[in-house]
Amino acid sequence: MNPNQTAEDESHPSITAASRRIQRLSLHLTPLPPSQPSPQLNMLTCAKAANKLEVDKVSLSTYMRGENRDIQEKIVEFFESRPDLQTPVGVSMNEHRELCMRQLVALVREAKIKPFRYVVDDPAKYFAITEAIGSIDVSLGIKLGVQFSLWGGSVLNLGTEKHRDKYFDGIDNLDYPGCFAMTELHHGSNVQGLQTTATFDPVTDEFIIDTPNDGAIKWWIGNAAVHGKFATVFAKLILPTHDSRKVSDMGVHAFIVPIRDLNTLQTLPGIEIHDCGHKVGLNGVDNGALRFRSVRIPRDNLLNRFGDVSQDGKYTSSLPTINKRFAAMLGELVGGRVGLAYASVGFLKISVTIAVRYSLLRQQFGPPEQPEVSILDYQSQQHKLMPMLASSYAFHFATQYLVQKYSEMKKMHDEQLVADVHALSAGLKAYVTSYTAKSLSTCREACGGHGYAAVNRFGSLRNDHDIFQTFEGDNTVLMQQVAADLLKQYKDKFQGGTLSVTWNYLRESMNTYLSQPNPIIARWESADHLRDPKFQLDAFRYRTSRLLQSVAARLRKHSKTLGTFGAWNRCLNHLLLLAESHTESVILAKFIEAVHNCPDASSRAALKLVCDLYALDHIWNDIGTYRNVDYVAPNKAK
Amino acid sequence: MNPNQTAEDESHPSITAASRRIQRLSLHLTPLPPSQPSPQLNMLTCAKAANKLEVDKVSLSTYMRGENRDIQEKIVEFFESRPDLQTPVGVSMNEHRELCMRQLVALVREAKIKPFRYVVDDPAKYFAITEAIGSIDVSLGIKLGVQFSLWGGSVLNLGTEKHRDKYFDGIDNLDYPGCFAMTELHHGSNVQGLQTTATFDPVTDEFIIDTPNDGAIKWWIGNAAVHGKFATVFAKLILPTHDSRKVSDMGVHAFIVPIRDLNTLQTLPGIEIHDCGHKVGLNGVDNGALRFRSVRIPRDNLLNRFGDVSQDGKYTSSLPTINKRFAAMLGELVGGRVGLAYASVGFLKISVTIAVRYSLLRQQFGPPEQPEVSILDYQSQQHKLMPMLASSYAFHFATQYLVQKYSEMKKMHDEQLVADVHALSAGLKAYVTSYTAKSLSTCREACGGHGYAAVNRFGSLRNDHDIFQTFEGDNTVLMQQVAADLLKQYKDKFQGGTLSVTWNYLRESMNTYLSQPNPIIARWESADHLRDPKFQLDAFRYRTSRLLQSVAARLRKHSKTLGTFGAWNRCLNHLLLLAESHTESVILAKFIEAVHNCPDASSRAALKLVCDLYALDHIWNDIGTYRNVDYVAPNKAK
Ligand SMILES: Cc1cc2nc3c(=O)[nH]c(=O)nc-3n(C[C@H](O)[C@H](O)[C@H](O)COP(=O)(O)OP(=O)(O)OC[C@H]3O[C@@H](n4cnc5c(N)ncnc54)[C@H](O)[C@@H]3O)c2cc1C
Ligand SMILES: Cc1cc2nc3c(=O)[nH]c(=O)nc-3n(C[C@H](O)[C@H](O)[C@H](O)COP(=O)(O)OP(=O)(O)OC[C@H]3O[C@@H](n4cnc5c(N)ncnc54)[C@H](O)[C@@H]3O)c2cc1C
Repeated sequence: MNPNQTAEDESHPSITAASRRIQRLSLHLTPLPPSQPSPQLNMLTCAKAANKLEVDKVSLSTYMRGENRDIQEKIVEFFESRPDLQTPVGVSMNEHRELCMRQLVALVREAKIKPFRYVVDDPAKYFAITEAIGSIDVSLGIKLGVQFSLWGGSVLNLGTEKHRDKYFDGIDNLDYPGCFAMTELHHGSNVQGLQTTATFDPVTDEFIIDTPNDGAIKWWIGNAAVHGKFATVFAKLILPTHDSRKVSDMGVHAFIVPIRDLNTLQTLPGIEIHDCGHKVGLNGVDNGALRFRSVRIPRDNLLNRFGDVSQDGKYTSSLPTINKRFAAMLGELVGGRVGLAYASVGFLKISVTIAVRYSLLRQQFGPPEQPEVSILDYQSQQHKLMPMLASSYAFHFATQYLVQKYSEMKKMHDEQLVADVHALSAGLKAYVTSYTAKSLSTCREACGGHGYAAVNRFGSLRNDHDIFQTFEGDNTVLMQQVAADLLKQYKDKFQGGTLSVTWNYLRESMNTYLSQPNPIIARWESADHLRDPKFQLDAFRYRTSRLLQSVAARLRKHSKTLGTFGAWNRCLNHLLLLAESHTESVILAKFIEAVHNCPDASSRAALKLVCDLYALDHIWNDIGTYRNVDYVAPNKAK
Repeated sequence: MNPNQTAEDESHPSITAASRRIQRLSLHLTPLPPSQPSPQLNMLTCAKAANKLEVDKVSLSTYMRGENRDIQEKIVEFFESRPDLQTPVGVSMNEHRELCMRQLVALVREAKIKPFRYVVDDPAKYFAITEAIGSIDVSLGIKLGVQFSLWGGSVLNLGTEKHRDKYFDGIDNLDYPGCFAMTELHHGSNVQGLQTTATFDPVTDEFIIDTPNDGAIKWWIGNAAVHGKFATVFAKLILPTHDSRKVSDMGVHAFIVPIRDLNTLQTLPGIEIHDCGHKVGLNGVDNGALRFRSVRIPRDNLLNRFGDVSQDGKYTSSLPTINKRFAAMLGELVGGRVGLAYASVGFLKISVTIAVRYSLLRQQFGPPEQPEVSILDYQSQQHKLMPMLASSYAFHFATQYLVQKYSEMKKMHDEQLVADVHALSAGLKAYVTSYTAKSLSTCREACGGHGYAAVNRFGSLRNDHDIFQTFEGDNTVLMQQVAADLLKQYKDKFQGGTLSVTWNYLRESMNTYLSQPNPIIARWESADHLRDPKFQLDAFRYRTSRLLQSVAARLRKHSKTLGTFGAWNRCLNHLLLLAESHTESVILAKFIEAVHNCPDASSRAALKLVCDLYALDHIWNDIGTYRNVDYVAPNKAK
């Protein structure tokens, strides 16, 4: 009953985390031994006690945790051993910012864990580090991500050898804390609308960085308010054109701009920094706003992997158009998104574990003259928490798959793989973070008054995680990218192109599902099929295929009168539903695969149960779709 | 673009609030005049601009605000004139607690607004005060509620003349800050399970208050950690029985227990107070835990309206059983619940207004070579915000109706009215606070990164409001009371009893709706009917009636094998759906009535539009129910 203990106890994504979770799950199937002498704390024997599942916890946890368990444990142990580095409840914003910086420095310089080297070379390890760090303090996880994924990642992925040579060590050892300055006050999602300019001056061989109006102030920039010494600034590259003494806009490029003196930390001339102040959460991260007034930087500070400027102002690039270069640049920044999806699952796990554990222990009401029952025995409580538990397993495997694909992409730079990882990371980041955000609220509520104690973590997790839905790509915008990608694939199919791996099922579905009677209803009545993975996957994919087909037809129809932009907007909710449905199909497919590949029989059986719950809960919630092929009459669906 | 301004601007539930809201609504139908010179801030002409609705804002705001506008304005003006009393963003817990106390004292002693006198005599005014106060700082609203509704209300409603005489002035002028100490560590929702005891000692003519075990520590008690001098303590009344020298438990009663010295504020002997510490929100309220060790209080401190003890230890009551007395006691405490429902609508209004306004101004993306569009032009954004706007109007009228019924009840003490207000307040409190909690998150997300700035209020509103779902009755528990009440009415009907006013439609529905073909589908295809209020209400009531009929049958069936408690739990989600559906029916009915009664034609037309949106959005979301009478096959619905 000590809330402190619960909180501490759950914060370790260590070796025992997975086994603890499955133990909880199995506890749900069997009565808990009475843990306290007081009579009202004896648990009622749960109706399902006879079905208790024996699971080999070591096998299961080995299977789930994989290779990077050691470094995660090392991180947790390090912070456990250092009470001076633990974030106190109720810490003030300024203290929190300084603490976060101290935590990060200690990680790198004292615990000797240096995440930067893994950003490109071993992303799976890098993301495992961020998961463990995020469980210590979400602000710390984001501060680390700003330094190594965003600022560091932009140098490595958008720059060339000279940048790596010059900046690697300083970023790695935190001598060079830096920022990633993309967003402006008026432009967040629409990055192509950025207005900051970088004008080349051939006389001095420099770029001049300028903020042309208030709307172009760089806003929300992490590490800018206090600690950053450099910033990767995204700005429109403006080159003089020799013919008519005019200039030409080459599109958005990235530039390294020093913002504070390396020694005194004084703001450099021409740079104005404002503090973005208190936020809903993540107050350990010092977000700031940056305005540039004719700030001159050497030509070498252009991160020139995808486009370069020669001393005489000539532009060169291996890529033919502004759009291609822009896409290539954004493609390299997808790592942050992968990291958020992965970390978000970590918070879901922590939160579900706290809520399920507490619901097993907490008792309230009961049959007359009998002991009170565990609140997890209430149907409503199970309904709130069990699908969430299943989803946390499902997301675990899906994001592991994403990390694996991302690692492959970083090695191979295959164009199709890049596109695939782009859409997959967009879909999973958006889907998982939205789900986790809702779940954190549900968990607080499911724990009643005690869920409201700050020490039990739902509040800080929710507040810190909330913005995961928005940064690194707003979820509503990302889901549209998923839908757009699906439609592209759909068109390609009819033009004889090949489908990417993740989308492959659509080929089958176009050919089979849609030409046959609804496969789900046809088999619904016989309960044997319900646990058949093929049945489950068919159901998910059938829905996706139908949504894809119908939205494609609607888009075609509306674009005649409304144009592309108007038609897209007219079908927007439909498109978002399609993207969601597709993402769920991918998640289920990966879960089924993970169940199948699990070597230990008892773990496999447990995972299978959880996977069935995941699949059937979704099918059940969407039963209307399956019962009614013509559910929404087309004339109503405008 | 100054976030501060937006925040301040929205915080006044003053005369202009309603008119501002409707102005927003009308803005949605017409282009906003360009407010800034920068070209990307010119708004696209919205497609519906031609349909612009002219609304007489003064009439509408008069109709909506009603009588208590003056006192609300006075409160807002008072706090506006006193910067020293405004809660700064990022205030620490201890400062916040002291500030809240200062705010409350200033309200009463300087602004001379004394809410206590209205608690019983003019509840509508009292709730209007709390709405205005809540918009200043939610913590202040709760602190005020603890003092006047809970502590003060328990003295007035559970005590008798002698208590009123002794305590009224001290409560009113804040010389006697006090607590309402019901919840214990192990018992929140299940109040009948409380374990604190009050044993009568006839020798000294005193009660002895005791905390028998750790689980019985009073927990979460507002005003206890710092400011409270008294507490109304709920404890089992234990009387000696003369015959066999044993004692008998008379059930839970309420007692006034002094907890701190009136002058020194020292904790009194036998009383142990712990601080509940940081919470997710409401950190301006000092919640504490109370343990009693043989604390002696005079016999007079029993709040004896529903049950009394004579000097020789004899128990007397006008009510025959423990359960009746318990129900009467809780019935008197329903005011807190009414207040939460009412206040929650206030936060919904603030939040929707901020989000809709911002969405009109914020532009992002657009058709090629054209200015960017207002994000409110995106279908997805409309889908998120417009039903929420409609709901805030719907809830406004529904909670006004609740306040009116509650006021009648306070005057008439009619038994049927008490039961009716009990169920209505349970349903509306649970429904509205759950809806508002979700909406606050959606609004933050809909405003992107700028929604995450603390100054824009979504964070503090969400954190402070979150617990509205839990205290004054957990929502999941309250909704079961609504369902239970409906089932009781359903049974009564078949036994020839009368239905209460709010439930009256069920009689009709049982006779008509269920014996006819589905009235919604029968008329669905002809669009003329969609805006017919009778059609809309029929749809809502049809669904409720079906749910009621089907759950009654399932309960009957399952109770044979599972007993009452087991059958109830087996049908729990179904019961919750029924309660929700019924509450929605009541809300719609009240909205339709309010539209009908609106004297000004232009306001009526505007309200009618919003009401249609409310009704049709719900019908649309639940279209499955209407299309499929046998939607869920009975054998699947176990
Ligand atoms: C704590 C925090 C840290 C951050 N750190 C950084 C950082 O270090 N560096 C950096 O460069 N940026 C940073 N950002 C900025 C962040 O990346 C942006 O907030 C994010 O990209 C969203 O942009 P926006 O806030 O302008 O939202 P907008 O793009 O204005 O979106 C607002 C709303 O409009 C909706 N919307 C927009 N376009 C569409 C559309 N086409 N269809 C439907 N709906 C749409 C969105 O769904 C959203 O709900 C940070 C932000 C925060 C809050
Ligand atoms: C900030 C704050 C201020 C408070 N102020 C006061 C105060 O001044 N005075 C006071 O006396 N109390 C106060 N409380 C206590 C508050 O009233 C209780 O928290 C509330 O009644 C819920 O009880 P609980 O926390 O024990 O939750 P529980 O009853 O333990 O509920 C936990 C979960 O179990 C579920 N559950 C419980 N029973 C059932 C069931 N039968 N069916 C389905 N689900 C069920 C609930 O839905 C909930 O999700 C306060 C609490 C907080 C957090």
